[in-house]
Amino acid sequence: MNYSSIDISNKYKLFNDQWQPKVIAEMNDYQFKIAKIEGEFIWHAHQDTDETFIVIKGEIKIEFKDGWVKVKEGEMFVVPAGVEHRPSSENESQIMLIEPKGVVNTGENESSDLTAKNDVWI
Amino acid sequence: MNYSSIDISNKYKLFNDQWQPKVIAEMNDYQFKIAKIEGEFIWHAHQDTDETFIVIKGEIKIEFKDGWVKVKEGEMFVVPAGVEHRPSSENESQIMLIEPKGVVNTGENESSDLTAKNDVWI
Repeated sequence: MNYSSIDISNKYKLFNDQWQPKVIAEMNDYQFKIAKIEGEFIWHAHQDTDETFIVIKGEIKIEFKDGWVKVKEGEMFVVPAGVEHRPSSENESQIMLIEPKGVVNTGENESSDLTAKNDVWI
Repeated sequence: MNYSSIDISNKYKLFNDQWQPKVIAEMNDYQFKIAKIEGEFIWHAHQDTDETFIVIKGEIKIEFKDGWVKVKEGEMFVVPAGVEHRPSSENESQIMLIEPKGVVNTGENESSDLTAKNDVWI
């Protein structure tokens, strides 16, 4: 049988749109999604699940109502369930998100222009 | 409030033992564990869960009963639940594992010398 590894960085060469996560792998009922992000996202929360950010390239900021964190290349951060947050990136960054299948990227704000389709594989 | 990101590579400076995964983060009931590995592990399977390998530094090989895959720096691979596998690394590699809390590293072979303690944070 032939098995193939997933080259994470290489996957970013396959698309240019921003804030539109693409699935690159599944583990049980969780998905690994990658996205290019630049500028500010909207404030939102995911009531039922934590959300993991890993920065593959660049540097992002995640704001909370009571503070913020910078997450640099090679770093990660887990946003706890229910916590309002706003990701942003001054220049374009490449991030990987890990969260359960079916999580809406804009959280409670499902009707935002920034709401992305789920289950788009790349 | 002060929030801190997790510098993944930096965490490997804090230990030297091999095949002993250390927890660096939790997401819901999943854990992110890092380990240094070198040489051959034992054949084992995790009946109830997939297991994700991300190679942070180096290059590993995962053997299956019907093939194998090399996973290089910056690459990942998800071993499906129930699939017998044997990880190995010719030289020391730094890997990150993502799997549910409580998974035993040696799978069904809980009595192996290589069985690591769980929930060791670093």
